[in-house]
Amino acid sequence: MTPLKNYKTMSTALPTLVNLHDQALHSVLQSAIDNKTKPLGSLGRLEALALQIGQILGTDKPVLAHPQMVVFAADHGLTAQGISAFPADVSWQMVENFLAGGAAVSVLARQHGLALTVVDCGVNRDFLAGLPAGTQRPGLLVRKVAGAEHGTADASQGVAMTPSQRDQAMRNGMELVSELPGNVVLLGEMGIGNTSAASLLLARLAGLDIELCTGAGTGLDTAAVARKCEVLRKVLALHADATQPLDALSAFGGLEIATMTGAVLQAAAQRRVIVVDGFIASAAVLVAQALQPLVLQRCVFGHRSGERGHEFMLQHLGVQALLDLGLRLGEGSGAALAWPLLQSACAILREMASFDSAGVSEKSSSVVA
Amino acid sequence: MTPLKNYKTMSTALPTLVNLHDQALHSVLQSAIDNKTKPLGSLGRLEALALQIGQILGTDKPVLAHPQMVVFAADHGLTAQGISAFPADVSWQMVENFLAGGAAVSVLARQHGLALTVVDCGVNRDFLAGLPAGTQRPGLLVRKVAGAEHGTADASQGVAMTPSQRDQAMRNGMELVSELPGNVVLLGEMGIGNTSAASLLLARLAGLDIELCTGAGTGLDTAAVARKCEVLRKVLALHADATQPLDALSAFGGLEIATMTGAVLQAAAQRRVIVVDGFIASAAVLVAQALQPLVLQRCVFGHRSGERGHEFMLQHLGVQALLDLGLRLGEGSGAALAWPLLQSACAILREMASFDSAGVSEKSSSVVA
Repeated sequence: MTPLKNYKTMSTALPTLVNLHDQALHSVLQSAIDNKTKPLGSLGRLEALALQIGQILGTDKPVLAHPQMVVFAADHGLTAQGISAFPADVSWQMVENFLAGGAAVSVLARQHGLALTVVDCGVNRDFLAGLPAGTQRPGLLVRKVAGAEHGTADASQGVAMTPSQRDQAMRNGMELVSELPGNVVLLGEMGIGNTSAASLLLARLAGLDIELCTGAGTGLDTAAVARKCEVLRKVLALHADATQPLDALSAFGGLEIATMTGAVLQAAAQRRVIVVDGFIASAAVLVAQALQPLVLQRCVFGHRSGERGHEFMLQHLGVQALLDLGLRLGEGSGAALAWPLLQSACAILREMASFDSAGVSEKSSSVVA
Repeated sequence: MTPLKNYKTMSTALPTLVNLHDQALHSVLQSAIDNKTKPLGSLGRLEALALQIGQILGTDKPVLAHPQMVVFAADHGLTAQGISAFPADVSWQMVENFLAGGAAVSVLARQHGLALTVVDCGVNRDFLAGLPAGTQRPGLLVRKVAGAEHGTADASQGVAMTPSQRDQAMRNGMELVSELPGNVVLLGEMGIGNTSAASLLLARLAGLDIELCTGAGTGLDTAAVARKCEVLRKVLALHADATQPLDALSAFGGLEIATMTGAVLQAAAQRRVIVVDGFIASAAVLVAQALQPLVLQRCVFGHRSGERGHEFMLQHLGVQALLDLGLRLGEGSGAALAWPLLQSACAILREMASFDSAGVSEKSSSVVA
């Protein structure tokens, strides 16, 4: 087994996050929300969302600009152990589908005017094969990691990524986010086998039994979920010493989760609003917040996935997702579906009239019965 | 007390609804959804929504055209009994706020490109006062009912509407929908006191105790909810003979609910998609489906309201709402927030690639563990 390395020795400094809580701005925002022409609190969780976005962007008139949907894709060596219902080739086929505009996230990004970028973090495919050197494909960023061009190693045999591969993937994520326009990043992912990596990270970092963390992924039946769970239990035992977040990330993978973890840290440092998709994207946030807890201030969880472990992950993080529609697709589909709610929260703050401005009477101080 | 009248004697024929279930189209839709490039069922309730809209519009390539948000507004005589936290003047003030573009539903309708029409079904205000005869105000339809121009009568003293007033309101709703463009109607409402009318309709038509049906409305405290509940209990007792849907509607009101009931029946007959907002809009559907159960085939419930009775109403109707964000504002705000999900469901059907067309491998027939 490749020797593990403590995260404190990570070769790249992590971005520093400031605490966004600002009592003065909080009061301004709360007062603006409370004085809108509606009963107090009657917009429910949209009010908390408006408050959060206002604090992230540091304004009581937030505008979400140039939203970027980034889909992080990679392959997983653990698929050799038969833990997925779909063949691993589907990872690269779906990347082509994203680029061709035919996948769910392509359709939803188009609907909502989200710029869509797919990042090859280690898909078992050369997407530039046959093209002249230096050619780029629109919508695709190739950010493969040396020695892991085709995906992670099989975590049941050793670490999925060496610490240096993990660090490179995280740096890739930081760098690519720093070059994105706008103030919102929506996180999506693709990688056959990646519910296993997310389940392993959840079990280890939240201290949960792997059975609670293991679900059907792309569609395993009950017996196959049980077999997957046993594979994952052995992987956890093999990497019993990987208790620190970055060690666990090395041990379990994947490259897309590591790249996304870097992306989350960078986006958080830049005070971008981070819209988190389902189980896999939340796993990247799980790692990122274990390193820098303040990232959660910047995260909006788009939906609660139907994948088994997601509910426990959200509970562990102490957060609540906006939508609960039984989605379990990934790709960023749940983040894209939740996106209009963020726009609504901002529009309410910016555009809704106050009792004063609209000449509407406020609540009676006493009610005669 | 004004004598009640059985609904069978209603002076206007109700629209006839056809059963939309079409096995051939259902199979085409289900097969199209199942062959999209995603694990089976992985878009969760969005798939059921796509199936429903496809069946309403009778096509496997549904396009939602010219969506119409209609906000039905009226006043309630029962407010004299102190059942609301806000003064009754707020009804007309909020209508002005809708027309000025400053209310929540105004902001959300603008965000989503929904045409917004406010219907004065009996607000205690002459919105055309001082204007030359025949003048109309943009976005406003005045559809007052003779003898109930200022709102319903106090239901604790007699019927809220006479049967002929109720019938006129329902006819108004049918007629105004028949003149709307497009194939989608989103239902909103405004009327201080109208949670009481909805609670009464729910208690009577679903056979529930009034306590389960009574909530805080615009923001009553616990003691005031208890007083409201006692007022409503007496109203129910006074109208113990109003057991039929239209009799209950006469007895309890309101004019906006009656007009909306007509609108629902007409929209359903025309195979329009009906996006239902919260507690009050659902009360109109409750009455409409008691008359014509097939209306439910055409209804999409936008959200589960934080108002107490709504959950029981949804259960009684056997339906599930899309959003659950603790909203309790009305106006159509929950319907507007859910609207992009309907667009997404249609876009998925129309635009997403199939496994064949995208060259993506399907699920393995067996998984090796």
